[in-house]
Amino acid sequence: MTIISPHSANPLVDGRQSDRAMMVRRGVQRLFSDLRLSMVPELALASGRRADLVALGGNGEIWIVEIKSSVEDFRSDHKWPEYRQHCDRLFFATHGGVPADLFPNECGLIIADEWSGHMLREAPEHRLAAATRKAMLLRFAKAAADRLLLAELAAG
Amino acid sequence: MTIISPHSANPLVDGRQSDRAMMVRRGVQRLFSDLRLSMVPELALASGRRADLVALGGNGEIWIVEIKSSVEDFRSDHKWPEYRQHCDRLFFATHGGVPADLFPNECGLIIADEWSGHMLREAPEHRLAAATRKAMLLRFAKAAADRLLLAELAAG
Repeated sequence: MTIISPHSANPLVDGRQSDRAMMVRRGVQRLFSDLRLSMVPELALASGRRADLVALGGNGEIWIVEIKSSVEDFRSDHKWPEYRQHCDRLFFATHGGVPADLFPNECGLIIADEWSGHMLREAPEHRLAAATRKAMLLRFAKAAADRLLLAELAAG
Repeated sequence: MTIISPHSANPLVDGRQSDRAMMVRRGVQRLFSDLRLSMVPELALASGRRADLVALGGNGEIWIVEIKSSVEDFRSDHKWPEYRQHCDRLFFATHGGVPADLFPNECGLIIADEWSGHMLREAPEHRLAAATRKAMLLRFAKAAADRLLLAELAAG
């Protein structure tokens, strides 16, 4: 049973959807913090698309997590395979109200609530070329630092 | 004339000193923002020392800025040459109350107030080895992202 009905006219404007997506993100963030991964949410990629969460390992490995808060949210996205070009491993993350078998086996899968996440399926590795990795790392670093500065200046 | 006397017993505990250092940092941050550099303040280096401000260019170039808020602050630091091992260019930054000729010619020099900074002298380039650059970029990226997450979680 999905918590947000895939049959409603437009589930993407359901107010609960963004709450659910944020809840999933928080759970993944807590899981990844435990794994000593650093993260930047909502990172614009070279393609112009925006990755929900990009994670960086101590070895420079880059993971992308695409958050799907409902069945419809997954079904309406036909472009997710493109994310592979920007990461070493690709995951979907969702919550317990979305059937796990909806998601493709060739991606990792994380089931999250607001407290933590559980990695139901690890993601296969498809290693980035060195130049792409460097560009992604730069993009990640600059976005994180620029947002941090904005937050610092806003705090006075 | 220095604003903070170099002859006081311990200028490092003068409350105005850290205000002055923060003012200089703000000016440098504004200058570097205009130059499209991303920045992380107070970044711990592999050596265990902490760089006052690390800046990252769009091409991956890494600059370190060492902030000196008084004559004594500069004179008591004998280890600044070590920063070269962690960056492509090394700068000092200070304010108008500290004589510019105090600082070594082989480093860049920025004179800042809280509104902006003026690059009085550009810094010569001493390019990092690829492995060191990658390690510094990772360190920068992870510190920025981890602080951003802490700020996000603190904001609720």
